[in-house]
Amino acid sequence: MSASLLSRCARKSLLSKVMTPTEVAHKFFKNGMTVGWSGFTPAGYPKVVPIAVADMVEKEGAKLQFELFAGASVGAETEDRWAKLGMISRRWPYQTGKNIAKGINTGKIEMGDIHLSAFAQNLSWGFFTKDHATNPGKLDIAVVEATAITEDGGLVLGTGVGITPEILALADKIVIEVNTSLPVLRGIHDIVADPRPPHRRPFLISRVDDRIGSDLAYFDETKVVAVVESTLPDNGRGFSAVDENSKKIAGHIMDFFDNEVKQGRLPANLLPLQSGVGNIANAVIGGLAGSHFEHLQVWSEVLQDTVLDLFDAGKLDYASAVSLSLSPAGFERFYKNLDFYKNRCVIRPEAIANFSEIVRRLGVVAMNTPVEVDMYAHANSSLVGGTKMINGLGGSGDFLRNAYLSIMHTPSARKSKTDPTGISCIVPMAAHIDHTEHDLDVIVTEQGLADLRGLSPRQRAQCIIKNCAHPDYRDQLMDYYKMAEKKCLAEGAGHEPQILKLAHKMHVNLEEKGTMKLDSW
Amino acid sequence: MSASLLSRCARKSLLSKVMTPTEVAHKFFKNGMTVGWSGFTPAGYPKVVPIAVADMVEKEGAKLQFELFAGASVGAETEDRWAKLGMISRRWPYQTGKNIAKGINTGKIEMGDIHLSAFAQNLSWGFFTKDHATNPGKLDIAVVEATAITEDGGLVLGTGVGITPEILALADKIVIEVNTSLPVLRGIHDIVADPRPPHRRPFLISRVDDRIGSDLAYFDETKVVAVVESTLPDNGRGFSAVDENSKKIAGHIMDFFDNEVKQGRLPANLLPLQSGVGNIANAVIGGLAGSHFEHLQVWSEVLQDTVLDLFDAGKLDYASAVSLSLSPAGFERFYKNLDFYKNRCVIRPEAIANFSEIVRRLGVVAMNTPVEVDMYAHANSSLVGGTKMINGLGGSGDFLRNAYLSIMHTPSARKSKTDPTGISCIVPMAAHIDHTEHDLDVIVTEQGLADLRGLSPRQRAQCIIKNCAHPDYRDQLMDYYKMAEKKCLAEGAGHEPQILKLAHKMHVNLEEKGTMKLDSW
Repeated sequence: MSASLLSRCARKSLLSKVMTPTEVAHKFFKNGMTVGWSGFTPAGYPKVVPIAVADMVEKEGAKLQFELFAGASVGAETEDRWAKLGMISRRWPYQTGKNIAKGINTGKIEMGDIHLSAFAQNLSWGFFTKDHATNPGKLDIAVVEATAITEDGGLVLGTGVGITPEILALADKIVIEVNTSLPVLRGIHDIVADPRPPHRRPFLISRVDDRIGSDLAYFDETKVVAVVESTLPDNGRGFSAVDENSKKIAGHIMDFFDNEVKQGRLPANLLPLQSGVGNIANAVIGGLAGSHFEHLQVWSEVLQDTVLDLFDAGKLDYASAVSLSLSPAGFERFYKNLDFYKNRCVIRPEAIANFSEIVRRLGVVAMNTPVEVDMYAHANSSLVGGTKMINGLGGSGDFLRNAYLSIMHTPSARKSKTDPTGISCIVPMAAHIDHTEHDLDVIVTEQGLADLRGLSPRQRAQCIIKNCAHPDYRDQLMDYYKMAEKKCLAEGAGHEPQILKLAHKMHVNLEEKGTMKLDSW
Repeated sequence: MSASLLSRCARKSLLSKVMTPTEVAHKFFKNGMTVGWSGFTPAGYPKVVPIAVADMVEKEGAKLQFELFAGASVGAETEDRWAKLGMISRRWPYQTGKNIAKGINTGKIEMGDIHLSAFAQNLSWGFFTKDHATNPGKLDIAVVEATAITEDGGLVLGTGVGITPEILALADKIVIEVNTSLPVLRGIHDIVADPRPPHRRPFLISRVDDRIGSDLAYFDETKVVAVVESTLPDNGRGFSAVDENSKKIAGHIMDFFDNEVKQGRLPANLLPLQSGVGNIANAVIGGLAGSHFEHLQVWSEVLQDTVLDLFDAGKLDYASAVSLSLSPAGFERFYKNLDFYKNRCVIRPEAIANFSEIVRRLGVVAMNTPVEVDMYAHANSSLVGGTKMINGLGGSGDFLRNAYLSIMHTPSARKSKTDPTGISCIVPMAAHIDHTEHDLDVIVTEQGLADLRGLSPRQRAQCIIKNCAHPDYRDQLMDYYKMAEKKCLAEGAGHEPQILKLAHKMHVNLEEKGTMKLDSW
């Protein structure tokens, strides 16, 4: 046993369970098992054991397939490799990777997405595994990354929590990967159980920095079958560079915030911010770093590199998230100033971070990027062309539904294979709907911002087309809207005008001709 | 002043404000005002003042148009008459009535719907009136029905609360209608304010019968401009008779509950029930009254007559709602046994009753009827044909999103003008989407029940078509599904197969040929 592992495992009774990843793989992984992993959107996930199991399949020809449950996506070297090797029969509720997406979209992997906060509870309640032949309502095995085990048997978790408390409680067998290459992240977590109704009680979080649980995750030690050492780093997220359009979008949002503060609808330091991932999110956080706003707070799913910028600029008081979704350089920066950042951050289970109760109480300002939105403000966050899964819904619905202000930001158009603006992100009717018109307050593109609060559907459509649509599509969309309005009002059915025969014509045209630009309606 | 009014108004300083409805109408109602009404889904709404204002228009030719905000629908003699007289320019968030629906669907009334819990808070925050020329972010006048005014200046409200606390706080002027024909309903209400973020704190309700506020509604007395007497009854909701299909649906749900209890996923007395309105809801509650389930609880928007049956059968321990949505006979029954029912019911603001925080904490079992659902479990609750507003979304989203179990029940088919089963309630793609696949657990028709928990979209589609579709449509739907599956999987885009060109063909066929039965796909 390595000195490093010995120093991280103060619970001596667990030392007898130490083994190698290969031993764990051979001893405990059987075909058809339901498997839970710690971690969230590549941070804090188990590495050496999943890799060893994949090696069994790839190098030894083992026939193994699993139902895989993890809080969100995890590193490609684990889930995407499992998918490539045909090792995943079922995956909930989110994923990232070329091979896993291919498996899902060709019908080889049964995947489903659901609001992340609902995922955590529904898994606990046995909803996802209720029909499993041998172990209904439970998980067969949980693999959890930790940075240390305390003397009293608590886990100091890693950089992402996800559904770790739930799988520790739900699994028959627990494998702990102690990652000795990471600092011991003691004190950054706030782990609390989410009891099953009717036993739920209020989660007494009224501020971003409130803590209601333990900094350790506890579990039934008799279920631990193995402790292994890992020295593999988190597979940090690549940083999305900020482009001109993203800067324009961020500018519109800063103007909007300014006016909301002026009108008394937002406090001077705004309200806790939730920001998705990608270049627009980075531009918005960058915009805040360069703004006059101070004493900001973040209540989000993931902390990206730009949040560190916001801390360093002295603008951010506190941040809460489910994981540190940093780039390799971001992780280095975080660990270098660990004492500084650790006292200003908390990492929580997704059951708590995404819980409607707290998002709504805090009055989060939610900002996310969709695939497309339609003129009535329904949004597609998951399925290109209405059928092809990208990653999943994630927590977008948890935040947009419960936010004080729900903002979706998107470029007005994207390139298709043959046309630099072949895809309009504003369409008559979204090809798939993850978020409805009842949930969005503001849509913003580089063209401008549409404040939809209090508008009827017909007002909304005109506002979105005028303010947000790309000039290449503005007239085409307005022509459709006017045509639909005329038809539906005449029929006395015009609350939200559509012509169902034509509503997806732009999508069909893209499929058939490579662009959403129509010859005619 | 009548003796009855005198006996109901113990706050003597308000007696100087007593006037007739006609005086109030002439003195305080000006064209273009923003107006808030108490009440909810015809109960507890103001009557004599709205009627007097309508009389001014109808009998005196006054030109008056208002922006009208009330918790949900109110009696037809008020809002629908206002609509008929062209007195409503704008209406949020729900309505009932032939004339108001006509005004909305012909573009004469700007209406919008939003989750009722979001409506209450967004109105408070000034979102709906932020662009009003003379009084942005506020309401000009609130008209509130009460059954008494206490000596310390509190209102004993009527049979429905809706957004009463919000409009009392938000309006410049307050008119109080004291309804002396109703019993003084002291003790049945639980009124609590919902502070604006960042000042929100947990709502400490962990049981259906928990109370966290006052039984009285308080307000700034200096804003009261008039007190009037009303003796008009609530315009009780007609009772929907239970048909054979509804009984079958209720039977499937009882079997489902039985099995959930057996599997340990529901306690023996279930969890708090939310039930919508209409004949299926009545059949389900009727089914429970005749079942072996005991010590039930209800956490809902409205209490209908069948809830009284459940009390009388000794099955129901406690019920919480926003209003008593009873038939005239139901009201009589309720008032006759007021002491019994009053100690077993609480009426709350919709901001609390529909709040995600509490719905989720309690683990409500939500049951609602949609216009249609699609094969992936997206539901249309509001717009026939995707464009024509019926009533509005109401609280369906508040409950379905946050429930422990989200159930939608519908007949598998409805009649069109020319075909007894011309409308399939299971379609390939809903013509409008209010609730997404991420929110529904169970769909049930008279044909059977589809338990969708843990199923991927492709599994879901097959399960819904097989278990729930009407035999007249089963093959047609399965043919579409198989065709879409084949195409999309071959293209590597088959997570949720659709063919956008055909996805609404059944709706278009209905429009053009009077039935959803196709000659061919």
